[in-house]
Amino acid sequence: MNFRQILDEKTTYAEQVLEKYLPEESGFQKRVIEAMNYSAMAGGKRLRPLLMKESFLLFGGEGELIEPFMAALEMIHNYSLIHDDLPAMDNDEYRRGRKTTWKVYGDGMAVLAGDGLLNLAYETAARAFDMAEDADTLKRVARALKVLGHKAGIYGMIGGQTADIEAETKEQITQEELLFIHENKTAALIQAAMMIGAVLAGAEEEAVKAMEQAAYLIGIAFQIQDDILDVTSSLEVLGKPVGSDAKNQKLTYVTLHGLEDSRREVERMSGEAIRILQSFPGKNEFLEELAVFLITREK
Amino acid sequence: MNFRQILDEKTTYAEQVLEKYLPEESGFQKRVIEAMNYSAMAGGKRLRPLLMKESFLLFGGEGELIEPFMAALEMIHNYSLIHDDLPAMDNDEYRRGRKTTWKVYGDGMAVLAGDGLLNLAYETAARAFDMAEDADTLKRVARALKVLGHKAGIYGMIGGQTADIEAETKEQITQEELLFIHENKTAALIQAAMMIGAVLAGAEEEAVKAMEQAAYLIGIAFQIQDDILDVTSSLEVLGKPVGSDAKNQKLTYVTLHGLEDSRREVERMSGEAIRILQSFPGKNEFLEELAVFLITREK
Repeated sequence: MNFRQILDEKTTYAEQVLEKYLPEESGFQKRVIEAMNYSAMAGGKRLRPLLMKESFLLFGGEGELIEPFMAALEMIHNYSLIHDDLPAMDNDEYRRGRKTTWKVYGDGMAVLAGDGLLNLAYETAARAFDMAEDADTLKRVARALKVLGHKAGIYGMIGGQTADIEAETKEQITQEELLFIHENKTAALIQAAMMIGAVLAGAEEEAVKAMEQAAYLIGIAFQIQDDILDVTSSLEVLGKPVGSDAKNQKLTYVTLHGLEDSRREVERMSGEAIRILQSFPGKNEFLEELAVFLITREK
Repeated sequence: MNFRQILDEKTTYAEQVLEKYLPEESGFQKRVIEAMNYSAMAGGKRLRPLLMKESFLLFGGEGELIEPFMAALEMIHNYSLIHDDLPAMDNDEYRRGRKTTWKVYGDGMAVLAGDGLLNLAYETAARAFDMAEDADTLKRVARALKVLGHKAGIYGMIGGQTADIEAETKEQITQEELLFIHENKTAALIQAAMMIGAVLAGAEEEAVKAMEQAAYLIGIAFQIQDDILDVTSSLEVLGKPVGSDAKNQKLTYVTLHGLEDSRREVERMSGEAIRILQSFPGKNEFLEELAVFLITREK
């Protein structure tokens, strides 16, 4: 099988794991569960649970201990999309070609559906304790839970969203602030994925830190590539080198450093991330290919 | 010291525990932290952490293991208030005599502040793992975490909120649905408080179940008393036996069963809850007084 076929298979598996932990649509709370599942099962690349599982394998992880956390991280990603789309936030009516949750269920129910998924994420992650008996495994699960909480919270994703909302009201933001937004809004959940995979497999503290750095590089490169594509896609469509970010006077790595430097930076970060992934005793070629695929994608 | 003085002292302690776990207002995410703290430090009875600590003491609990959970439960209570007040939900502009979070910080930031507190609740609760070394204590903390997740989620508080929103769009709701709303919107976090106190103190499964039942009775009686006060307060003001609930055609225990039956029911539930609290080998008179105080309050 080639990379794309393996990727499709693994994505299907990640989706099945998520589905296993989603609640049944019944009871007086049926409506909020429908709204939660509507968002969670709307497709998507399932990138974060995939990276988590592959990082787990890289460090020799075995068994199903990783699965509650795979589902939990995807729930957190999806709750953030539901709340991001709200009229109070980005006011988006479509996502992945379908109406957003609040457009279908109303914005009150969408607030509750987001809360429901966030809460369910921690309920689900905590189910990994049932698969652990000895103190060592219990501590690994506890440590994984702390990583999840930290990277999803105000010192991670929510922090990045806050700075992003704040930036919209400003004339100009600094490069430091831009990097803060990318690091927390985009990279933090990728860090959670790769760190938790390592933690649950029993990796040493130093290796977990290295994975945090690799995930940082992948996350930031992923974001710069996004900004590059905004410019180059516009080139084809508009016939001139002006992207929507430039028109909106949005500060991006590309508007700040130009296309060539940005491409070089993506290449540098990608290379460094791969070198980290190759520095461990274990080996996971698929994870390396996945990282390169994410960073160098053309759309 | 009399009951009220002890209550004030213990409330101050619960508030200090919460404050210890609230984040510092700094960094690019400063604004969301300000909004979180604005809500969390707005006062309130700190009823849930109080009930948790006293239940912990009833079963002989010692040390600070309970404190992260006290703070976590109060964070969950406060996030639910922030999101409840949103224009998308109840659209309330004032709470406890102050402007609501969204009125001060905007509704986008209020969505994030609620998310931030909910996420921080689990980050905070997970800090109890750092205070546990042996497998037995680690398992208690894990079990407490699962109780918290269950009672705060779609099979607890969020489930109750969903049914409450749904009920507003209906002509009539059944008594079964009304009880579901009270049980989940009001009683679930009280159950979490009293169950977690027992779990962390090492109580047997059977005792934890009995505490769940006592908390259910206290929560429902608390709610019926609320409905009674709605009628009797209106009596004084309006000079006729019609409360705002009756005028709004809101189905409550009182509009369904009348004032006398409701009072009898509160008394019955209160008595049963106290009998449960007195059935354990340990004793906590303050907890008994607190339960009676909550149920029979006059405002």
